[in-house]
Amino acid sequence: MSAGVTPDRSLWKKVLLVGDSLTQFGFSKDGSYAALLADHLQRKCDVITRGFSGYNTRWCRVILPDILKEFDPQDIAFATIFLGANDSNLPENTVQHVPLPRYKQDLKDMVEMMMDFGIPKDKIVLIAPPACDEKAWKKFCSDNDKIFTKCNLTAGKYADACLDAARECGTKSVDFYGSIIKLENWQETLSDGLHLSMVGSHLLFDLLKPVVEQLTSELPMIYPDWKDVDVDNLENSLKP
Amino acid sequence: MSAGVTPDRSLWKKVLLVGDSLTQFGFSKDGSYAALLADHLQRKCDVITRGFSGYNTRWCRVILPDILKEFDPQDIAFATIFLGANDSNLPENTVQHVPLPRYKQDLKDMVEMMMDFGIPKDKIVLIAPPACDEKAWKKFCSDNDKIFTKCNLTAGKYADACLDAARECGTKSVDFYGSIIKLENWQETLSDGLHLSMVGSHLLFDLLKPVVEQLTSELPMIYPDWKDVDVDNLENSLKP
Repeated sequence: MSAGVTPDRSLWKKVLLVGDSLTQFGFSKDGSYAALLADHLQRKCDVITRGFSGYNTRWCRVILPDILKEFDPQDIAFATIFLGANDSNLPENTVQHVPLPRYKQDLKDMVEMMMDFGIPKDKIVLIAPPACDEKAWKKFCSDNDKIFTKCNLTAGKYADACLDAARECGTKSVDFYGSIIKLENWQETLSDGLHLSMVGSHLLFDLLKPVVEQLTSELPMIYPDWKDVDVDNLENSLKP
Repeated sequence: MSAGVTPDRSLWKKVLLVGDSLTQFGFSKDGSYAALLADHLQRKCDVITRGFSGYNTRWCRVILPDILKEFDPQDIAFATIFLGANDSNLPENTVQHVPLPRYKQDLKDMVEMMMDFGIPKDKIVLIAPPACDEKAWKKFCSDNDKIFTKCNLTAGKYADACLDAARECGTKSVDFYGSIIKLENWQETLSDGLHLSMVGSHLLFDLLKPVVEQLTSELPMIYPDWKDVDVDNLENSLKP
């Protein structure tokens, strides 16, 4: 096939994870929620991360239309938006901070962009940002010459705004902050106070599981189980 | 965008991993070589697994054209073919066994299909199948009512045939079997005698790294580093 010829529409549905560093690191050893999803959805979906370390909703809102253009909306099994960990930096962080009402509106705008693109709202999941372990993140910032501008209570307000946005848009949502903060040793969900540890990744995966089941359980396994392949009639047996 | 409208060509290049269960489980905790690649190539490439547990070259050869049709060859950063762990079952396993010359020819045919599709041969990597820890796999088979039909020496012959196929086609190759077998505790590279452990996944990733560097180091990071974003000129600053 030469360049410019349209590829066939995918057999594999796509799970599109849009977010910041928590998503960019989604296949890493620690922050592995994307890898956990990909493993869970093997032979069903491709898990595609569009995570941008340091970005907030204000910036992701600008690039979302171009990101969506890579896909056919018919192929999207579901899409997540997982932002707020940078937006919720205190106002003194003038580069990353996004005021709370603006954060909520940006999320709603991003949902609308996805819906306009053709992804139905019941296939869109807003993930509330995680808690912030101020002590650990302060140490990380100090060790790495970064200015410490996070506050866990503020992070909670952004998480609430995210859940509100989901309610107002009619999308699905996952209360990650709320699920973290009620754990006795909730600091263990974070590797450096801000990013996900393996514990945090597994918690997020567990929270996403009911949504995933609802949106993918009907999808068939692509190509037959090897034990069902008819070796005397390979061509017909292996039709997609 | 409505159904049927052509998606824009991807900004993200694709790494296409074709294989059997060792590839299907590529995002799992143990057999995580796909996740390691995806993490390494964040903001550059999507890593897409097309792994089919239990399949051999004879079957994958049949489905490869349909698998390729999902992609635009211009988007492929590189593609791997990682087969032989099932082909090398002894002839008494009449379903999965593929005779050695046929295995080699199937690999060469698959390379030719990829090249005909538009992937240049220097972007195709044949991965020789791993060693088999007969003792562990025999136990697994016995515990799971499976017939034990593997032989480590035979696996080595298939690995050699894979490397020969790569040489004859002029593609890149990775001598996974050879790299495993020379380790003192080589059995640790396998989780059950056949599939990859975390040690084996990391070894495979390390073997792939020079190839990956050669084929992806020129690719730009997609969208600017957050520290380079001009917040006073977002639209221009965030052009892809």
